[in-house]
Amino acid sequence: MGTSASARPARTRLSVDARREQLLELGLRLFSGRSYDEVSIDEIAAEANVSKGLLYHYFGSKRDFYVAIVRRSADHLLERIEPDPEDDPATRLTRGVGAYLAFVEEYGEAYSTLMRSGIGADPEVAGIVERTRITIVDRILEGAGVNEPPPIYRVAIRGWIGMVEGASLDWLDHGGVSRDRLAALLARLALAALDEAQRG
Amino acid sequence: MGTSASARPARTRLSVDARREQLLELGLRLFSGRSYDEVSIDEIAAEANVSKGLLYHYFGSKRDFYVAIVRRSADHLLERIEPDPEDDPATRLTRGVGAYLAFVEEYGEAYSTLMRSGIGADPEVAGIVERTRITIVDRILEGAGVNEPPPIYRVAIRGWIGMVEGASLDWLDHGGVSRDRLAALLARLALAALDEAQRG
Repeated sequence: MGTSASARPARTRLSVDARREQLLELGLRLFSGRSYDEVSIDEIAAEANVSKGLLYHYFGSKRDFYVAIVRRSADHLLERIEPDPEDDPATRLTRGVGAYLAFVEEYGEAYSTLMRSGIGADPEVAGIVERTRITIVDRILEGAGVNEPPPIYRVAIRGWIGMVEGASLDWLDHGGVSRDRLAALLARLALAALDEAQRG
Repeated sequence: MGTSASARPARTRLSVDARREQLLELGLRLFSGRSYDEVSIDEIAAEANVSKGLLYHYFGSKRDFYVAIVRRSADHLLERIEPDPEDDPATRLTRGVGAYLAFVEEYGEAYSTLMRSGIGADPEVAGIVERTRITIVDRILEGAGVNEPPPIYRVAIRGWIGMVEGASLDWLDHGGVSRDRLAALLARLALAALDEAQRG
């Protein structure tokens, strides 16, 4: 929209990265409303106003395109729940869970589709989801000052991630609870899980 | 093994129900070790020493056969975690979770395959899994004396089921914690979840 260079044509070529990003954003939108099988490469190409050839050039296959979307979403999620080291552990958890739930709200259908699987059964997609969970578990244990945690800590916090996911899916389906209320409940239960793990 | 009727041939015809049950048991064993796609109807028929036609006669299709196995497993699970009304709520939870984890141990690979999905994405299979969760949520809320629970209770206990599943999968993969220890931790966290929901 640069009016300073009015001599240049309005339609500029996108850089490779910007184009890739734009395609991923569009793909996320398309896969959010419907299942993986329902969205065709033809439709993605038509919506993006690019050739199928260009899509394949960037991403290789429909599956690889989907994997790239999931990877990008996982990166965004981890960025958004990045803890502020200034916060105390309880605040860090409450803010982190709040940011997680905001993400769930924003990408509701895509989150639901992925977690209720389908394409989630694809080993590469499942790997991204699982690595994201492990990163969250590690951050929480680190934040709680637990280094080289015994197995009970990991199982407790891995269980707690399952709680966040289960609660998120129920919340998306039924609502009836504010985001802050749910975030506070889940954050307190993470502390409770750590307490229980500590019982030895 | 009736020795009283020694004149009858040792090999008797199985009743329809017994035969069906035997096929389901065999199917569970086959699908436990490998994924849905890896097990063929030919192999099931060969292992069961019956014709493919008989399998189709009983179950309609491979998918329907799998659905029947999942339904039977869900019934078994719910039976085994049936609470004893004599128990106080905390004991009921600890015993219930203990029985759940014993089930997870016994059917480790089948549980893991189902929960990590693949066929779990099939709407009918997902429906059975989800109804089983809802039954458990209802039982717990009933046991806690919560009638017509506000949404925060349901989301908290539905989240807690996610915790049990997430912890179970981690426990199957990594172990390192006794069943009783994990059952006690999860039971106490169910009570904590109910407490947190009560905060209003």
